[in-house]
Amino acid sequence: MTWLSPLTIGNVNPKVKSIVDACSLIEFSLVQVTKCEYAVRGEIVMRAQLLEQELITKPSSLPFEEIIYCNIGNPQSLGQVPITFFREASVVALCDNPSLLDKAETHALFSADAIARAWKIIDKIPGKATGAYSHSQGLQYCREEIAAAIARRDGYPAKAEDLYLTDGASVAVHMMMQLLISSEKDGIMCPIPQYPLYSASMTLHGGSLVPYYLNESAGWGLEVQELQQQIQKARGSGINVRALVVINPGNPTGQVLSEENQKKIIQFCKDERLLLLADEVYQENIYAEGKKFQSFKKVARSMGLGENDLSIVSFHSVSKGYYGECGRRGGYMEVTGVDKDVKEQIYKIASVNLCSNISGQILMSLVSNPPKAGDESYEDYVRERDGILASLARRAKLLAEGFNKLEGVSCNQAEGAMYLFPRLHLPERALKAAAAVSMAADTFYARRLLDATGIVVVPGSGFGQVPGTWHIRCTILPAEEKMPALITRLTSFHQRFMDEFRD
Amino acid sequence: MTWLSPLTIGNVNPKVKSIVDACSLIEFSLVQVTKCEYAVRGEIVMRAQLLEQELITKPSSLPFEEIIYCNIGNPQSLGQVPITFFREASVVALCDNPSLLDKAETHALFSADAIARAWKIIDKIPGKATGAYSHSQGLQYCREEIAAAIARRDGYPAKAEDLYLTDGASVAVHMMMQLLISSEKDGIMCPIPQYPLYSASMTLHGGSLVPYYLNESAGWGLEVQELQQQIQKARGSGINVRALVVINPGNPTGQVLSEENQKKIIQFCKDERLLLLADEVYQENIYAEGKKFQSFKKVARSMGLGENDLSIVSFHSVSKGYYGECGRRGGYMEVTGVDKDVKEQIYKIASVNLCSNISGQILMSLVSNPPKAGDESYEDYVRERDGILASLARRAKLLAEGFNKLEGVSCNQAEGAMYLFPRLHLPERALKAAAAVSMAADTFYARRLLDATGIVVVPGSGFGQVPGTWHIRCTILPAEEKMPALITRLTSFHQRFMDEFRD
Repeated sequence: MTWLSPLTIGNVNPKVKSIVDACSLIEFSLVQVTKCEYAVRGEIVMRAQLLEQELITKPSSLPFEEIIYCNIGNPQSLGQVPITFFREASVVALCDNPSLLDKAETHALFSADAIARAWKIIDKIPGKATGAYSHSQGLQYCREEIAAAIARRDGYPAKAEDLYLTDGASVAVHMMMQLLISSEKDGIMCPIPQYPLYSASMTLHGGSLVPYYLNESAGWGLEVQELQQQIQKARGSGINVRALVVINPGNPTGQVLSEENQKKIIQFCKDERLLLLADEVYQENIYAEGKKFQSFKKVARSMGLGENDLSIVSFHSVSKGYYGECGRRGGYMEVTGVDKDVKEQIYKIASVNLCSNISGQILMSLVSNPPKAGDESYEDYVRERDGILASLARRAKLLAEGFNKLEGVSCNQAEGAMYLFPRLHLPERALKAAAAVSMAADTFYARRLLDATGIVVVPGSGFGQVPGTWHIRCTILPAEEKMPALITRLTSFHQRFMDEFRD
Repeated sequence: MTWLSPLTIGNVNPKVKSIVDACSLIEFSLVQVTKCEYAVRGEIVMRAQLLEQELITKPSSLPFEEIIYCNIGNPQSLGQVPITFFREASVVALCDNPSLLDKAETHALFSADAIARAWKIIDKIPGKATGAYSHSQGLQYCREEIAAAIARRDGYPAKAEDLYLTDGASVAVHMMMQLLISSEKDGIMCPIPQYPLYSASMTLHGGSLVPYYLNESAGWGLEVQELQQQIQKARGSGINVRALVVINPGNPTGQVLSEENQKKIIQFCKDERLLLLADEVYQENIYAEGKKFQSFKKVARSMGLGENDLSIVSFHSVSKGYYGECGRRGGYMEVTGVDKDVKEQIYKIASVNLCSNISGQILMSLVSNPPKAGDESYEDYVRERDGILASLARRAKLLAEGFNKLEGVSCNQAEGAMYLFPRLHLPERALKAAAAVSMAADTFYARRLLDATGIVVVPGSGFGQVPGTWHIRCTILPAEEKMPALITRLTSFHQRFMDEFRD
């Protein structure tokens, strides 16, 4: 008898297998970070890897000199420099070696306030042990620092005991899905287009995704009428709709919701008794004039809705913002409006994995409480922060203009987040050509774009879109000095593409 | 109508609720690390917290001066000092600021080989970006370093593409459970007593735990006859038994399996077509004379069994060993003997959370490749490592002797790991007294022990034990200088307890 492993593709948990579509996107978002030893899904990036190798082995064998990865919100992989203070303070804090902190050399290497902050953190850690497991929810000190920052941001109180520090926001999202989903009868409302973590997590936990479509023609607006239609439809088919996911600022769509709109969404959740899952990881990435981030919790409180009127879970992360510390895996969720006995269940899930990494916990507390006026680091910090945000705003504007100049392409501005999601109005003959090679039309376009220019984007299919419409997601993260060349390459490619397929 | 949150204890996923027993143990293992703002399960440690507060507010109000936490393998929380080199190299590496690495002050603060290692790591990270997401399986360089270390350890090849770096080993265990368990018909064989992560994860994923009992009278030996009986019993009741969990060295039991025993277990898995899940996180914690850790993969290869004969997943972590870096959340699993298409499914699960924390990845590569003879750090490293391991061995012996001198207590030696699991032969009247307050007898004993001495141990009930037998788990981690006093307090308490309840 030939060898048959006890674990085969035939007997893997079918829930895992069925997330392939959702995950293929995440996978190919990731492949770019480093070489992948074996084939993974995500044709576009797999091909980008091949071409990158070709550029090394046979320079100038391709019509471009480098691959430009515009497919993932991973700023430091595209050269963004970390904010000095956060690295200094967290590095020193992690080096829990008091003798080091005392040394003159340390003062020559690190700013005084970074060292002071590190001391403060270390003194607050039980036994000064950064190498010990922390409380399952995270270090009490870090949670108090973050709660204080939330209270300052919103003007309403926040409590350390409502915070659960996690290895990035993704883990927190899974924890909530685990609590909410018992069977395929449990449904979670989710925007389309969406960040595929949500569809993947719902599939993994065996629940039903209840889609609601963002209105592209209204700047990817979230319309309550659409929510009402979709929840009725889902309930009509026997789904117990339990929660609503809102991503604000939007990913991949980049819209920043107006306070008016947020109030309607909150009222909808209250009326329909839905848990509001607020993905607010891009809260510090706002670019549009006159736009401002307001947390759902703040808006709810401003409506007079308290702990006993609405249940909100807010997710945040060190991976985004102007700091973009993706590799540090820090994040949290703030859980309000649920009873103590439910929080004990959340605590229990957190406890199974003991705790999140201390480095990420500390970094989350640092980005929540950056240097203040008068601190030695303050001026550098402000310069670094404002430099990054201003540059991102310029890049977002430049790239959107570039897309909007293209024949048959319409692109909303990125009011926030890190992405543009332009719509491609492709000629009939292009759709036929894609179908002929059994590719989604947006994948066909992205593949052609890569082959001609080395620019890597994600086909809209991976995020979901109104059937019959085609999009690509392109990050605004390539270095600013490379942006004009990128747009030129994009433009000439698109022109040739349209010339080839124009009806 | 009064407020009813959309998320209540009544509509939480029942799988989450049902892991309370398994998790209460993990929870109270954790509560000790820092104060807990709201009631959590785990009566013993909740009470320890109260008493600790009392000692602060009303000094000398209790018959002891301090609480000694012997309930969790969290060495640095009990004062174990981190290994200098690992902290230096990982700290410098995380401070991805080349100018810092160049500075003279840095050389005054860190050893030359730590700085060199940090440079090596940074140069191998794509874009030198430690703040970027890595490949979902972990940085290629770290996986190559770890694979090389496994190959040196075993004398058989290991491949970077078989490694999945995770935020601690717990995450890797969950990933495998997620792959293996589709319904309650899927069963996983698990030792009793066990580390409750396994029961918790199986419950969370809705599978069935198929218990097999370790033989206490044979030094917690693992007997294949018992495996055979239990698998037949499970199959008889319609369970599809898919995998066997072995914890070696054992937790909470501390036994180190003989090569002979390992061969029988391997043959059993091969014959019964079970995936072997080898928890080998204590592989560097061996204390017994003549005992040696051998990985299941090494033993299988030595039997001539290759990739196409047996499927093994080996789990390891930076939390244990002599380094005990629990708070850094580094770990990995090595997956061998499964097809590429299954590995793609594992990759996909890993991809949903993007990647594990880079700090933990780097630390895992460092503990796998410590300083070598000739390196500047080598002598300090050896002194620190051997000092910790020798002290743990002395403490394990001392504490076991202490337990074995107690009336009605029998305790196997800790051949490895960090725990003793002594059996309590309690008088009938003690059992009655426990029943009268509806407590498990071992919880009753642990509670009395805490109140009288401040020593915190975990009742055996939390790990599972042969019905009608009673145990406690006690770590060997309290500082060596405190050990004699601890044993004296333990002894006089036990004497008084027996005097009170002796039949």
